Amino acid sequence: MSCDFLSLAQPGVQQLSPYIPGKPVDELARELGLDPLAIVKLASNENPLGPSPRVIEAIRNELDELTRYPDGNGFVLKQRLAERYGVEISQVTLGNGSNDILELVARAYLAPGLNAVFSEHAFAVYPIATQAVGAQAKAVPAKQWGHDLDAMLAAIDDNTRVVFIANPNNPTGTWFGDDALAAFLAAVPERVLVVLDEAYIEYAEGGALPDGLTFLARHPNLLVSRTFSKAYGLAALRVGYAICAPVIADVLNRVRQPFNVNSLALAAACAALDDAEYLALSRACNSAGMQQLEVGFRRLGLQWIPSRANFIAVDLGFDAAPVNQALLREGVIVRPVAGYGMPTFLRVSIGTESENARFLAVLEQVLAR
Amino acid sequence: MSCDFLSLAQPGVQQLSPYIPGKPVDELARELGLDPLAIVKLASNENPLGPSPRVIEAIRNELDELTRYPDGNGFVLKQRLAERYGVEISQVTLGNGSNDILELVARAYLAPGLNAVFSEHAFAVYPIATQAVGAQAKAVPAKQWGHDLDAMLAAIDDNTRVVFIANPNNPTGTWFGDDALAAFLAAVPERVLVVLDEAYIEYAEGGALPDGLTFLARHPNLLVSRTFSKAYGLAALRVGYAICAPVIADVLNRVRQPFNVNSLALAAACAALDDAEYLALSRACNSAGMQQLEVGFRRLGLQWIPSRANFIAVDLGFDAAPVNQALLREGVIVRPVAGYGMPTFLRVSIGTESENARFLAVLEQVLAR
Repeated sequence: MSCDFLSLAQPGVQQLSPYIPGKPVDELARELGLDPLAIVKLASNENPLGPSPRVIEAIRNELDELTRYPDGNGFVLKQRLAERYGVEISQVTLGNGSNDILELVARAYLAPGLNAVFSEHAFAVYPIATQAVGAQAKAVPAKQWGHDLDAMLAAIDDNTRVVFIANPNNPTGTWFGDDALAAFLAAVPERVLVVLDEAYIEYAEGGALPDGLTFLARHPNLLVSRTFSKAYGLAALRVGYAICAPVIADVLNRVRQPFNVNSLALAAACAALDDAEYLALSRACNSAGMQQLEVGFRRLGLQWIPSRANFIAVDLGFDAAPVNQALLREGVIVRPVAGYGMPTFLRVSIGTESENARFLAVLEQVLAR
Repeated sequence: MSCDFLSLAQPGVQQLSPYIPGKPVDELARELGLDPLAIVKLASNENPLGPSPRVIEAIRNELDELTRYPDGNGFVLKQRLAERYGVEISQVTLGNGSNDILELVARAYLAPGLNAVFSEHAFAVYPIATQAVGAQAKAVPAKQWGHDLDAMLAAIDDNTRVVFIANPNNPTGTWFGDDALAAFLAAVPERVLVVLDEAYIEYAEGGALPDGLTFLARHPNLLVSRTFSKAYGLAALRVGYAICAPVIADVLNRVRQPFNVNSLALAAACAALDDAEYLALSRACNSAGMQQLEVGFRRLGLQWIPSRANFIAVDLGFDAAPVNQALLREGVIVRPVAGYGMPTFLRVSIGTESENARFLAVLEQVLAR
């Protein structure tokens, strides 16, 4: 005669489908009895270079302090970010990955009766975070796989409190330029918080993409979200950040858990921020790998969506699920994106030269069957 | 003409006062120009032994994988916890510290119009997590500094969805026995989730305190929350867990962030769980230190609340704030607890023998002024 603790949960929570991450190497190895070392994982947009020696050193220097709580204010990292980007410390919020930032926004500004606008084919955490607090998720049809910013503007109504935009976007890799962002921000009502998710921006730097931070001064309703999980190579540690107006940062800092970012992540992020060499290497590896995959896809007669991130969505032209399963059996993990409304695509993270080559070779075999 | 993003925040969020952590050593050193190495911190109930060598080794072995996302399911750690405690993996939820667990409960089961019941002088995160989701926080007057379980039962109404109880309690160190817990659980309506916070239980084991896990089979509305931050010495890494009925664990796992626990924390927690030697040392150090402080307080003519945790609340008999300030100037950090309704008390974490001695010596000097 026990109670039903599913129906006692909040309505939005009851309907949540958890985020489905890229399959971990160890999990696939367990399931199929494969050697973990023989598995290639190109499924989670991770940095294929392995960790930077400077980061490893920073972590080793912190190990004596494991029994101590982290600095809940993250003072040193926030100071370094503020210096680097020419903002005030009061504009910075640290997150347990940028996922945490997205959830803090939802918990602070969304509720039943309110809504968040985002694009079709955008990051799954936008609808999850929105639904978890019982708000309405308004997904706006994409244009050529990318954000249709005009349609997103039109979708904003009196109950819209947040708009999530990503540049470049995951899982499509699409992007918008400086003028498009400027026009969008000028047109969004100032009571609507615009979350510009730049998780992959470091890969696009120097290209046609705007630097969201340069819009902050003119747009107090803009929040720029970034992460150390991608180009900085710290996915395991969980550290991201938001830069926005101090009043919004103050609200997010009230909502976040007191020790949301662990000590090793704080130390590692400081080291990573200074490690220009690793960042340059990451970008170079990514550019070369992107080219390698594009050449491979062309050779196989496959279409893809041009990408400015560290992954590429390739279109098989038919249901990708059986191909994904076949790749898994050969020890190659990529990301099926049917859940993103892209059932004929696979999203492939850019790996090292040999990982990319292995993926292309196995894909060719599988497609030839 | 920008909008007010404080008043746009959810009502509960607007009224949040953030949790005030123990002052970090580096922060005090910066503020007062002190040598960090000369500062004694007994403010955050941290394990004074420093990290276990087995934990350090487990972390070093994981460093090659820093660029990879953690296993979002925490498979290995959940398996080890399930084995250790004789429960199913489906009963375990991992948290970014047990703070995360408390918040997951609030976000899943509380909302405006609902309430959570807890005791006066209890952990500050109970009201914070409750208020953050707009629910009502019902603090029940304590009895001799401890939980008045009968009064807490009486405070449960039709809108109560969660009761937080802590054994032993922080910041008082008070506890209740097996019979009291059994009677309480038998009387709580089965639709009310009882969160039994056992963050400090490892220090009390073998004493008069019940093992909350033994009540799970009879009470599907019970959730036991524990942490690796205290006796296991992993506060820096952020890892805690809940054990409860699978249906509740399923709900909490929907609400939690996909990668809420970082990879190094997962590896370290597995190592810590097997490190019986470190745990025994932690307990022995704590017992000896508790005795040392009690002897010191007696010599100084001070009262204290008997504690089964790794801290002790000492009553100065007058406003403790100036004494706290004087201790800080001497490089000794303890925790003022006026915010917990205990303005004449200081909460002192049990340190090493020399840390305890330094604290007692400085306290004696300060009180003699």
